[in-house]
Amino acid sequence: MAVTSREIRLTSRPQGMPQAENFELASVELADPGPGEVLVRNSWMSVDPYMRGRMYDRPSYVPPFELGKALQGGAVGTVMKSNDERFKAGDLVDSMLGWREAFVAPASALNKLPGAGVPPQAFLGVLGMPGMTAYSSFHRIGAPKEGDVVFVSGAAGAVGSAVCQIAKIRGCTVVASAGSDEKLAWLKGVGVDAGVNYKKAPNLLEAVRAAAPKGIDIYFDNVGGEHLEVALEVARPFARFVECGMIAIYNTTEPTPGPRNMSYIVGKRIKMQGFIVSDFMDMREQFIADMGAWVRDGRIKWEETVETGIENAPKAFLNLFSGANTGKMLVKLD
Amino acid sequence: MAVTSREIRLTSRPQGMPQAENFELASVELADPGPGEVLVRNSWMSVDPYMRGRMYDRPSYVPPFELGKALQGGAVGTVMKSNDERFKAGDLVDSMLGWREAFVAPASALNKLPGAGVPPQAFLGVLGMPGMTAYSSFHRIGAPKEGDVVFVSGAAGAVGSAVCQIAKIRGCTVVASAGSDEKLAWLKGVGVDAGVNYKKAPNLLEAVRAAAPKGIDIYFDNVGGEHLEVALEVARPFARFVECGMIAIYNTTEPTPGPRNMSYIVGKRIKMQGFIVSDFMDMREQFIADMGAWVRDGRIKWEETVETGIENAPKAFLNLFSGANTGKMLVKLD
Repeated sequence: MAVTSREIRLTSRPQGMPQAENFELASVELADPGPGEVLVRNSWMSVDPYMRGRMYDRPSYVPPFELGKALQGGAVGTVMKSNDERFKAGDLVDSMLGWREAFVAPASALNKLPGAGVPPQAFLGVLGMPGMTAYSSFHRIGAPKEGDVVFVSGAAGAVGSAVCQIAKIRGCTVVASAGSDEKLAWLKGVGVDAGVNYKKAPNLLEAVRAAAPKGIDIYFDNVGGEHLEVALEVARPFARFVECGMIAIYNTTEPTPGPRNMSYIVGKRIKMQGFIVSDFMDMREQFIADMGAWVRDGRIKWEETVETGIENAPKAFLNLFSGANTGKMLVKLD
Repeated sequence: MAVTSREIRLTSRPQGMPQAENFELASVELADPGPGEVLVRNSWMSVDPYMRGRMYDRPSYVPPFELGKALQGGAVGTVMKSNDERFKAGDLVDSMLGWREAFVAPASALNKLPGAGVPPQAFLGVLGMPGMTAYSSFHRIGAPKEGDVVFVSGAAGAVGSAVCQIAKIRGCTVVASAGSDEKLAWLKGVGVDAGVNYKKAPNLLEAVRAAAPKGIDIYFDNVGGEHLEVALEVARPFARFVECGMIAIYNTTEPTPGPRNMSYIVGKRIKMQGFIVSDFMDMREQFIADMGAWVRDGRIKWEETVETGIENAPKAFLNLFSGANTGKMLVKLD
């Protein structure tokens, strides 16, 4: 009995801001799983800003998405049929085979997830890649000390909101930048000390200065662009800049000039470091232990913004760049 | 018997490129040294790019130079008279009391230097602050491994030429950027693998690509500006950027846009770190041991560009910004 799966394919490479026309919905019939293979039905899939980078045809740390093929990304689903002894029907699993309703893959492409205690989509958020990204880089590059002032841009996103709360747990003062008063209200509700609405502030530098009058020790950068320049301006000596992403310039078609105050890197002895989450896989066990406990204790909270149906996955992805999401942007598939 | 000393004072703060009119020569009569004080006659003084920063009236890691007072900087001299048991007449000493022919100061303002083996002005160069700057930051931030490709801007200067040679000792391939063919010829003579004349190259990026076709692992930045953008472009994954100085933008009166390719910091997982030499004082003994041995063995060579007479100290300083110096820029005072 064949299983039909709908999937989203990249049909053309975006120039600048991605458009609905860059994607198409297609239907495939899945073969029965062969030896060592597993059939999975996805219940949730993730859309993340980093996926924009894979839509360019250029060498990078992961190969570009191929035109005419299904996109890839984090997904959580349930095993329907297994020809591998490590999995059985009903198991909750995650994989990088999102952007599709179901798939057949070798068992090695899956991880079994603990079923209890949290909703399954948390493994695409606080307990998944975004949570691990926040946890690992904030500790390894940010090197937080109690009393540090931490400035987080894109603070209402999946990574940013995790960083804000981890920083509070570590005894830091947290200043968050986000694009709506509703997002900032939610962030203050989970403990953030001060917020800046970058879409409303007439002068971002003055707004951040007012929120962090003594300057900042850590800047967690999801945004780049003007936020990075402001962070350099208000940085204290020996500040650490965790360079997680630069969503402000992902879709620019012309090269964007960098900060006009780069010389502060020398004068203030700033450390600025980029990373991708796989660089810190040695911290994975510690992440699972700490973050699992914090989620169970209610010390880490999260928000979700959900679209429903595979046909709405491109819309969910496009909405990331207008800041439509508070917390993790997800697509519910069943 | 009073001693007369001529000194250089800052009379106005430079706007953009410093000019001769920002300085004046003055004469002072020195009082006899009191208890615990020492009279020193300087034989050599240093001019360094970092001094430009102290001419601005702004908070920084060292206070600004005061108008109407003698400037300060590294100097080597001889004790003429001592009222402190740690020093006796004839001792070779260094201090931060340059820009003057002689001075009276507490003994705590001086360090006694070993007299033998090297000319005294080496303690203002390879065995002094520039050498320590190169040695400490190249090791601590650059973290060189054998086989790394190292790109050095301002490579013919006091710091840059030390970095080039230390990198060769550490088994690296070295690509140097400097502003004349004569400078590059000297650098190749001390072992540098490839050179780029940035004043002649029609396209700096293409010139650096040709000199470092496999990319770079370490960028030692004395320059900032376009060199920094080029370094980001050719950097390999996990490259380290030692941010020592940005002489290209020290004298700009308008904010200069930063690199247009900042997002490589994320994508290539680059670490970019500023410092000042005093941050690494824990490495001082190791520096003296290693660098002393390398100088004695002839593995580290240096050049000097010398002006004579305190009245020519401003000229020597101004010449730093046109790149008139190969190696350490010095003023001979006796």
